Amino acid sequence: MAATLRDVADHAQVSMRTVSNVVSGYTHVSEKMRAHVLRSIEELDYRPNPVARTLRTGRTGVVALIVPEIDVPYFSALARDMINAAATFGYRVMIDQTGHDHERERDLLTGNDRTMLFDGILFSPLVTKLELLEMNSPTKMPLVLLGEHDFDGRYDHVAIDNVRAAQDAVQHLLDRGRTRIAAIGAQPLEQYATPQQRSAGYETALTEAGIAIEPELVREAEHYSRADGYDAATALMALPERPDAIFCFSDLLAMGAMRAVFDAGFSVPEDVAIVGIDDIEEGRFSRPSLSSVSLDTAFIAERSMERLAARIDDPDRAPEQIIAPHALRARESTAIAQSP
Amino acid sequence: MAATLRDVADHAQVSMRTVSNVVSGYTHVSEKMRAHVLRSIEELDYRPNPVARTLRTGRTGVVALIVPEIDVPYFSALARDMINAAATFGYRVMIDQTGHDHERERDLLTGNDRTMLFDGILFSPLVTKLELLEMNSPTKMPLVLLGEHDFDGRYDHVAIDNVRAAQDAVQHLLDRGRTRIAAIGAQPLEQYATPQQRSAGYETALTEAGIAIEPELVREAEHYSRADGYDAATALMALPERPDAIFCFSDLLAMGAMRAVFDAGFSVPEDVAIVGIDDIEEGRFSRPSLSSVSLDTAFIAERSMERLAARIDDPDRAPEQIIAPHALRARESTAIAQSP
Repeated sequence: MAATLRDVADHAQVSMRTVSNVVSGYTHVSEKMRAHVLRSIEELDYRPNPVARTLRTGRTGVVALIVPEIDVPYFSALARDMINAAATFGYRVMIDQTGHDHERERDLLTGNDRTMLFDGILFSPLVTKLELLEMNSPTKMPLVLLGEHDFDGRYDHVAIDNVRAAQDAVQHLLDRGRTRIAAIGAQPLEQYATPQQRSAGYETALTEAGIAIEPELVREAEHYSRADGYDAATALMALPERPDAIFCFSDLLAMGAMRAVFDAGFSVPEDVAIVGIDDIEEGRFSRPSLSSVSLDTAFIAERSMERLAARIDDPDRAPEQIIAPHALRARESTAIAQSP
Repeated sequence: MAATLRDVADHAQVSMRTVSNVVSGYTHVSEKMRAHVLRSIEELDYRPNPVARTLRTGRTGVVALIVPEIDVPYFSALARDMINAAATFGYRVMIDQTGHDHERERDLLTGNDRTMLFDGILFSPLVTKLELLEMNSPTKMPLVLLGEHDFDGRYDHVAIDNVRAAQDAVQHLLDRGRTRIAAIGAQPLEQYATPQQRSAGYETALTEAGIAIEPELVREAEHYSRADGYDAATALMALPERPDAIFCFSDLLAMGAMRAVFDAGFSVPEDVAIVGIDDIEEGRFSRPSLSSVSLDTAFIAERSMERLAARIDDPDRAPEQIIAPHALRARESTAIAQSP
């Protein structure tokens, strides 16, 4: 007959609660006790019924990671790091992608999602600040926000200094002697936080350098995809006065933009220097390799998972705002300085 | 007070079982009945307790997708399609990556994983056929295998014809007049199925063309990464007799190989034509764009999810073997034919 939780407790001469805590992976069990109980679990070949355990503990051992698109390299790298970070806290990760579905995001944030079977949410949302402030019943589910929304400090929040990251990217182009610097990735005002903040960094860098913002050099992109970058750069290279540099709000936009510059008959970095944000591996092997602002996805994953695990254990703790480091990686796509 | 399942059943004048079926997303409820019950759920603002529901139905509404590495573009594209396909069957997807951890894979396959809280598994395994045949207690969990293992027809299985895909890639290089064709991605015999089958396709194509297999042109790669491709191609370009084409067992290997050929001072496709397998988006924007064998991830996702949902509903049905289509996409990296 299959061994029960009670059998394990009897065998290990501990309480059923202790066995349950070990099985649930709770961190407050001492390493020595854990090893002791695990020996009994092994010897009796005890297989906990996960559903019964869930009902008993009220916990699933699963956290949800919500991203707009899992096949965007930045998010798949984040997911990789998040799965690893979650494992160190004894959690598994369920990944959901919202696409560009605001309703789905709102359902998750308001707890209207009726199938939630996880203990907490790591959420990289697209929804606008305005929409979130209007939500009358935010979720009771432990929640850590990733990315640029701060939601008035109501939630734990891990993000980079997005304005500064954009400013650093544009300053790098200025340092290379570029003066006619375009931007790809802007979006209509008041919609999403990321493009707003990156636009602000772009404008600050140019303004501090005494360069006027030229609206024709600022291009919108809907999905931050290679195709969006390609289309926007194609339009830029067709201008009577072409840019001598392009700051792309993501590396995927930059990969598309580089290809467009070549297809228009120009060279990177000789004619047009290009810099992105994300530092995805693709950009280290592309020709030319892509200069980019590196975001520390491992740091973001570890700190946000640590925050979420703490909040699951203590829902009433005060929210924290954590800024992840970023760093410019100069590569071939900005290698050549132009003389003034 | 919060509405209960009974309140909804009373309000809708249906059985509690019908409400439960609607909440669980079972497909055998008529659309009319579903709409009727959902109206009562809305009116009473009924929020099912997911854990209690799970215990009641014995189902979680979650399927696990197990891949070696989520940040490999092929797997993140597959995950994207799988999440979409699962949604059409009323399932959410929990993603787990095994890394290169055989123990973890075995635990999942044998049901030794002690935290399983899902109804079925979509499994893209690395473990060797030999190891699997030796497993004395395969999992009772509904399981669909993706990729090249067939496990003697014991499981539902969705895969491409891997030997044929490799053969088609090499034939494409032969059609371009290349004769000294290298391969990157081989692995020691008897270890994994994918490299074995792709090696077999490579050898068949060359043999049929009357070209002898030269061991120095066949290079191993451990992780099918850009870095592996870079290192292997660097070694190939240093040979006294260089190859005039390289067949890479994955597109990521090919992206690294292209960069290595350039860094060695040669051109793609002029000096070396390159073809990969996977047809990842990155290869459509790279310079040159990458010829590749396209695998239909949407087809793989839809058919495997459909198989898994059917098996969850009826564990005793006979396993099916499904072959997904593939197609060569010729691009710039093989654009130039060489005269003999």
